[in-house]
Amino acid sequence: MKFITSEKYELLLKFMEENTLDILLISDSESSKDVNLQYLSGHPMDAELLITSSGESTLIPWDLSLAQEHAEVDSITDLVSFQFSYANIFKEYFSNTIKKSSFNVAVNENIPFRTITLLEDQIPGIKIFREPTKVASFLRELRATKSDLELKNLREAARIASRVIADIQQFAQNATDETENDLAFYVRKKKSDYGAEDVAFPTLVGNSSRAHLIHCHPSSSNQKFAKPGLALIDYGAKYRGYNSDITVPISFGTLSEEHQKMKDLTLKAYETAIELIDVGFPLWKIHEAAINVFENGGFTMPHGLGHGLGLTVHDSPGITRKPVDEYRLKHWKEEVVEEGMVFTIEPGCYKEGLGGQRLENDVLINNNGKVEIITKSSFVEAE
Amino acid sequence: MKFITSEKYELLLKFMEENTLDILLISDSESSKDVNLQYLSGHPMDAELLITSSGESTLIPWDLSLAQEHAEVDSITDLVSFQFSYANIFKEYFSNTIKKSSFNVAVNENIPFRTITLLEDQIPGIKIFREPTKVASFLRELRATKSDLELKNLREAARIASRVIADIQQFAQNATDETENDLAFYVRKKKSDYGAEDVAFPTLVGNSSRAHLIHCHPSSSNQKFAKPGLALIDYGAKYRGYNSDITVPISFGTLSEEHQKMKDLTLKAYETAIELIDVGFPLWKIHEAAINVFENGGFTMPHGLGHGLGLTVHDSPGITRKPVDEYRLKHWKEEVVEEGMVFTIEPGCYKEGLGGQRLENDVLINNNGKVEIITKSSFVEAE
Repeated sequence: MKFITSEKYELLLKFMEENTLDILLISDSESSKDVNLQYLSGHPMDAELLITSSGESTLIPWDLSLAQEHAEVDSITDLVSFQFSYANIFKEYFSNTIKKSSFNVAVNENIPFRTITLLEDQIPGIKIFREPTKVASFLRELRATKSDLELKNLREAARIASRVIADIQQFAQNATDETENDLAFYVRKKKSDYGAEDVAFPTLVGNSSRAHLIHCHPSSSNQKFAKPGLALIDYGAKYRGYNSDITVPISFGTLSEEHQKMKDLTLKAYETAIELIDVGFPLWKIHEAAINVFENGGFTMPHGLGHGLGLTVHDSPGITRKPVDEYRLKHWKEEVVEEGMVFTIEPGCYKEGLGGQRLENDVLINNNGKVEIITKSSFVEAE
Repeated sequence: MKFITSEKYELLLKFMEENTLDILLISDSESSKDVNLQYLSGHPMDAELLITSSGESTLIPWDLSLAQEHAEVDSITDLVSFQFSYANIFKEYFSNTIKKSSFNVAVNENIPFRTITLLEDQIPGIKIFREPTKVASFLRELRATKSDLELKNLREAARIASRVIADIQQFAQNATDETENDLAFYVRKKKSDYGAEDVAFPTLVGNSSRAHLIHCHPSSSNQKFAKPGLALIDYGAKYRGYNSDITVPISFGTLSEEHQKMKDLTLKAYETAIELIDVGFPLWKIHEAAINVFENGGFTMPHGLGHGLGLTVHDSPGITRKPVDEYRLKHWKEEVVEEGMVFTIEPGCYKEGLGGQRLENDVLINNNGKVEIITKSSFVEAE
């Protein structure tokens, strides 16, 4: 099922017209994911999608059966009948579709350079639109505000992940020799029991000797979880393609003054941020307010305050800094809180040796402009 | 820890010299993975790596702490000190490193187009090498034959996955109402118990109504697993970054003649392929021999016969068809079985309504040229 609404599809065609684009090419593969494929066609993965300026869509899937089940497009091309030659498929597609001697093709910013060189070498008259970042921003913006159906899926993904918090609390309170891996498995199983189709991303479990790493690697280990100090678990649930994302900060044992300060700053940054969220308020200012809390306390926050949730766990909007360099400022546009947005708020404070604390919940702005916190993470204290 | 040997690092510098390349840029991010980052630098993910033609390496990691723990490079650049501006970092890097007015930068084929436009717009004198496929092929070939350390990791990944086969047999023999998800969880837990650091990829579990999909989506579901007909489970283990990959074909109930034919063809294709593996033998001919078995039996095989295993589950070499179109033939080179290669052999036969059978084991060519089958999958029959 495709998630784009007909109103938004019109906006896409308008964007193409304004930029004199003849074709939009979206590409998704194992090594280079692009959820716009699923958003625009319903087909979940491993395909090329071509959309003309009049809205005609053609899908070239790796797996034809999967496409027949999921894709909502005007035509599907069978790779097998072209003996898996993308060069030949593209040649035939463009010669059938485009009657001009020179034409513009837009691509998303993360399309592999391989595809660009293949097209430029093989397709006469093709001009690749040199502003992939503009295309990416437009598509991100399109997906940043969600339809009612999307909001329903996001609420369910949040509900599932939120229900696991009680299990995590219980695990932490009773933990003795259990490992980070044990907790990761437990949480994965609970999410599935509660209706998740998958995890949103590999569960990050950091005990106090690993939690200072923002994305610890490996994501969980066979180390004992309940070590004195500041630990955390960062996880999410996927429901019908849509993702939630929660971090539960957990402390073990008696805390030093510095441990306590890290917790306090995290909570203060979180509350400061939540307080500011309101329709029309610039997102980068929410990030800045949180950063200021940490900096006034003698710490820093080495990541963005939050990010949108949708078909990816790092969807638009970003709640992050305003760029400082000219290049990025040129492509930057101030984003504000809007109805239909769903995003995380996740301030965090880290120090090697002490661990890390990050408090993360998911925020949904409903279609009456009301701010709803749809997950229920809070600090957990264990012996 | 970086896995490339010093001999292979010399080959890389020679490749750069032969193609008059001044810099090689390798880029890995959440949306565009490139294991060459880990292979060449030891740093596992989320970074840019620059290597000069004299072998000096510079890493720009997203997470500095992670780099300090894992990277083996000559210098590490702190993103924070550049306020996360890649444009400014690249400007400084190239102005410090390159003293020529015009210079060549090679990139891998899956580098995001965004990075290409950023470099071309921002760095005076830069010329991006227009043959990313040549770079990719070279790097794949470099990684296709493994060092003793890599082989040790691959053997361990295979041992772990292989040990789970007995658990799967037992699960299948006793299955009543258990779901595909139940089996996926069970297998994940067993792999971890046996020492895997992670799954190699999401476990694919297809009952007889889903196993005709080569990559079923979602990868496992809440459907009952033990439905009459042809089912399969495709899974692997990751050990120190290295992957194994096994498919166990499972049949339930009394089989029809056509069911039996699909099993028989799969077994015959498998045996035909294994028989042909020998140092120096062209890989595409092994694929072709397997395809012929299916086609002579009135079926087809809609995927390649196998693929290399290493830091990715789809490493080099590919055991697949010889390309038919000029464009791909131009970049194609016949690959043969070599010492130090590790790859899967996985013939499969699929039909909607009947299900699918795929028999997949991992083959290692040791440094005496001996062919070893390092996993032990075989057909499982259940009531």
